[in-house]
Amino acid sequence: MVENTPGEFYLPTVLLVGVGMIGGSLTLGLKKRNLVGRVIGIGRSRRNLDRAIALGAIDEIAESIVEAAAEADLIVLATPVGAMADLMLKIDSAMKPEAVLTDVGSVKHGVVGEAKDRLRKSLSQFVPAHPVAGKENSGVGAADPDLYIDHKVAITPLAETSDRAKELVETMWRAVGADVISMGVEEHDRVLAMTSHLPHVLAYAMVHLFSSAKDSEKCYQMAAGGFYDFTRIASSDPVMWRDICKMNQHQLLEHIQGYQNTLSHISSMIESGNESALQSLFSDAREARAVVTEKRKKVVSDTDLIPRAKRVRQQVNR
Amino acid sequence: MVENTPGEFYLPTVLLVGVGMIGGSLTLGLKKRNLVGRVIGIGRSRRNLDRAIALGAIDEIAESIVEAAAEADLIVLATPVGAMADLMLKIDSAMKPEAVLTDVGSVKHGVVGEAKDRLRKSLSQFVPAHPVAGKENSGVGAADPDLYIDHKVAITPLAETSDRAKELVETMWRAVGADVISMGVEEHDRVLAMTSHLPHVLAYAMVHLFSSAKDSEKCYQMAAGGFYDFTRIASSDPVMWRDICKMNQHQLLEHIQGYQNTLSHISSMIESGNESALQSLFSDAREARAVVTEKRKKVVSDTDLIPRAKRVRQQVNR
Repeated sequence: MVENTPGEFYLPTVLLVGVGMIGGSLTLGLKKRNLVGRVIGIGRSRRNLDRAIALGAIDEIAESIVEAAAEADLIVLATPVGAMADLMLKIDSAMKPEAVLTDVGSVKHGVVGEAKDRLRKSLSQFVPAHPVAGKENSGVGAADPDLYIDHKVAITPLAETSDRAKELVETMWRAVGADVISMGVEEHDRVLAMTSHLPHVLAYAMVHLFSSAKDSEKCYQMAAGGFYDFTRIASSDPVMWRDICKMNQHQLLEHIQGYQNTLSHISSMIESGNESALQSLFSDAREARAVVTEKRKKVVSDTDLIPRAKRVRQQVNR
Repeated sequence: MVENTPGEFYLPTVLLVGVGMIGGSLTLGLKKRNLVGRVIGIGRSRRNLDRAIALGAIDEIAESIVEAAAEADLIVLATPVGAMADLMLKIDSAMKPEAVLTDVGSVKHGVVGEAKDRLRKSLSQFVPAHPVAGKENSGVGAADPDLYIDHKVAITPLAETSDRAKELVETMWRAVGADVISMGVEEHDRVLAMTSHLPHVLAYAMVHLFSSAKDSEKCYQMAAGGFYDFTRIASSDPVMWRDICKMNQHQLLEHIQGYQNTLSHISSMIESGNESALQSLFSDAREARAVVTEKRKKVVSDTDLIPRAKRVRQQVNR
């Protein structure tokens, strides 16, 4: 589905800050499609960076973030969100005026707030982004050049963001197969609280209840497909989810309250034996889920990708 | 893993009452392994029964439940639970004294109560059972002879149930690949409320909240893997789940309350910013789920199957 279109869109030098599964999948994806010259990586663990070189996710290791930032055409912040503020301060003074900065954080208002504080020179070059793709495994060893095919990437451009920077980031994500959706910062955090953060918290709560049940041994034995599918996401990284709960506290708490109200409503239907109301609620939910299933089948079309890639290439290589 | 062991365990005539995915998968499984002579089917829809013959799930259609029950060595009630009481009354007076009766209901206390009322002659021949296997599709067209491989089947024998009847039903389920677990009736309903009924209600609640959210269109667009995995089970049959909510009302309401308490607890951790408590709760949940994953990998071993099959064969063919 994604054509290899050398020359249409090309990034001579990319700096990847934080070389894990998310960032590594992006750079591997760009390399596989011949859309990048060289990738410089920087990170905390030398061992992990050596592994990233061996896997081809990066080509070289930066000695200094300031020097590497000065060489890059695109800088991708793929660290935990908590580490981004300091990095932005260093990058701001170093990056080229035509370069573009983006990130991959799961919650956007915090990153955007930091960017407004830290990016004194380069705020218009910054495009906040969030690739919505997770796997149970993390680390660069789990990176996959095709991870983003048919996955969503939300971008939340600021009023200050230049059209050129926005288009470059959009084109890059489309080039590795993603479906890019533009939205407001608050809207992003509210929507993701519903589609991702709330389900994770609910799955963690289910497993917690389950393992503290008085029949917990028999429950373990009988754990059926229902429970199993339902709690798959409770295998995600606890530290990441702790941070997301903190960063998106407000929106998440609002959705948890909404969920508790919904559950109380269903509970009272069960208690009062209101079978017709239950059945129609269950039917509506099944239909709503079928709509989501249909929407997920929508694929990124090349007709959308190619003209954008051409336009951006003209801008990048001008 | 399941050996074809002709002669070890053999049912000359099986009567399947209610020919859908669950019952059809059992009879197809028995036939595939040459463990049954003929299968008589009875059901409400002639068209469905003709389809079951074409698929090989049954060999012939019963004209009368009483006549067919009189011929069967094993009778399997695979109808909705609500229909079982009347059927039991008819079967009780008709079935052979050495025949065995079982069912596949998802909630056991109701079926057991009906059995104690209705099975005046044959209560010792009845083995309540619950194969825990579901698919998104229903109907005999979705039947699969290998559906039960590595799936759990709970049996909840009564004080009155004969050892012979219990062993026959256990051996039959093991012969089609299932992992049979014996437990009490109340225990079954409480455990299944936790492992299956609660997760289904929670998934329905999540989809309901989602589709009534103010950003519902953007939520549909962004629905990520987390949401998607989490709500898979909300595609199950609404009528079946309405009935399960009714039949297991008491245990389910208790677990919903427990879940609400757990969620309130997590919510207050998020609100108060208790990061270490959140992280350890998330870590514990991840570990607990890993334990379930390990337990699910346990396979049924032939060493367990063969000796039992031999014993039961001696009893069946005495």
